[in-house]
Amino acid sequence: MRIEQELEKMGFVLPTPKPLAAYVPAVRVGNFIFTAGQGPNVDGKALFTGKLGREVTEEQGYKAAQLCIVNCLACVKSLIGDLDKIERVVKLLGFVACVDGFVRQPWVMNGASELIVKLFGERGQHARSAIGTNELPLGIPVEVEMIVQVKD
Amino acid sequence: MRIEQELEKMGFVLPTPKPLAAYVPAVRVGNFIFTAGQGPNVDGKALFTGKLGREVTEEQGYKAAQLCIVNCLACVKSLIGDLDKIERVVKLLGFVACVDGFVRQPWVMNGASELIVKLFGERGQHARSAIGTNELPLGIPVEVEMIVQVKD
Amino acid sequence: MRIEQELEKMGFVLPTPKPLAAYVPAVRVGNFIFTAGQGPNVDGKALFTGKLGREVTEEQGYKAAQLCIVNCLACVKSLIGDLDKIERVVKLLGFVACVDGFVRQPWVMNGASELIVKLFGERGQHARSAIGTNELPLGIPVEVEMIVQVKD
Repeated sequence: MRIEQELEKMGFVLPTPKPLAAYVPAVRVGNFIFTAGQGPNVDGKALFTGKLGREVTEEQGYKAAQLCIVNCLACVKSLIGDLDKIERVVKLLGFVACVDGFVRQPWVMNGASELIVKLFGERGQHARSAIGTNELPLGIPVEVEMIVQVKD
Repeated sequence: MRIEQELEKMGFVLPTPKPLAAYVPAVRVGNFIFTAGQGPNVDGKALFTGKLGREVTEEQGYKAAQLCIVNCLACVKSLIGDLDKIERVVKLLGFVACVDGFVRQPWVMNGASELIVKLFGERGQHARSAIGTNELPLGIPVEVEMIVQVKD
Repeated sequence: MRIEQELEKMGFVLPTPKPLAAYVPAVRVGNFIFTAGQGPNVDGKALFTGKLGREVTEEQGYKAAQLCIVNCLACVKSLIGDLDKIERVVKLLGFVACVDGFVRQPWVMNGASELIVKLFGERGQHARSAIGTNELPLGIPVEVEMIVQVKD
């Protein structure tokens, strides 16, 4: 449980993903796990809403991306119990809600990427895309989905 | 052919995906199938165009998402013949074209997710992301791509 | 090195992807390689910036999509050395930054798809999604990520 303890030291608590009506938090196929898209929710409520370049500062966006990835990890944990069983973080796809003219999506997504690398080291070296968008569900500023490879 | 019969009972007809110039409807690698992004087309024409929050109501968006997933299933069928060979619906990625201020993308995407769960039951429990965007190809309101796991 | 020679004949030079702070150009899991999202960069600088429907013409967007896919191939090469080891190009996900009202994302993305098919023939037959968006990192008009299957 080393990874989860590291998260706790940083002040992040892994939530228990709630069963959702129409879809599930994550699906495993072989050694791959695909998570559902996650927002910056804490205790089931979005900690940030609004867009980058307007209500949400870049620093807040960075923190929102951190929370998204904590929730992605919680989705993975719901299937494998212990995050130390992650062999490799493979891919992040991150969307940043922003006003026209905001082009620093990568800096926002670094909140997710840098937390992953800090937690997992070499196993955390992942591929990534950072994409802007005009709107995300319920007004969240960032949504991230993750693919990981897990041990047998 | 149980799944296809269920679809027909619901009034959905699986089209035959046309060969496209620059890409194909779906690709299989091992037990994974990845589909191309699908719009709400019937007989090769979009049944809905426009954006959520303006020309397209949430109910129409829901129906558009249903048609997208029917077309995703048709793409899968083009490779495996019988949809009953689907072991697990793994992942949906859905984009909803919307005006600024529309934040109910998940309700729109439920059109896709709820149809999948109705058809496949437990095997239909999938991970999902719902993303807003300012424009989609040819003005369609919803585009969905799918990853499934198929039996050997 | 046939594929790389073909690229050179067409006037495309494969860059050496730079190691990035928070993420890597591509990750291999089994026979899958997932690339990071790539823009139309040449020598580390975007050759095009701006949006389709405003600063960037459809023809320029097509060329931008070509450069994105050249950079995706460079990411793959960084892991396997020789692009001839690609067994199948599986999936492209392409984002096109555009003004409201621009709906020809597929024509832009054909720059990527047609180059892949020209290079790889049948092994290049891929699934694809083309998505519009209001903004991409640093103002690039197109961003593409790729999944390929490689030989053992």
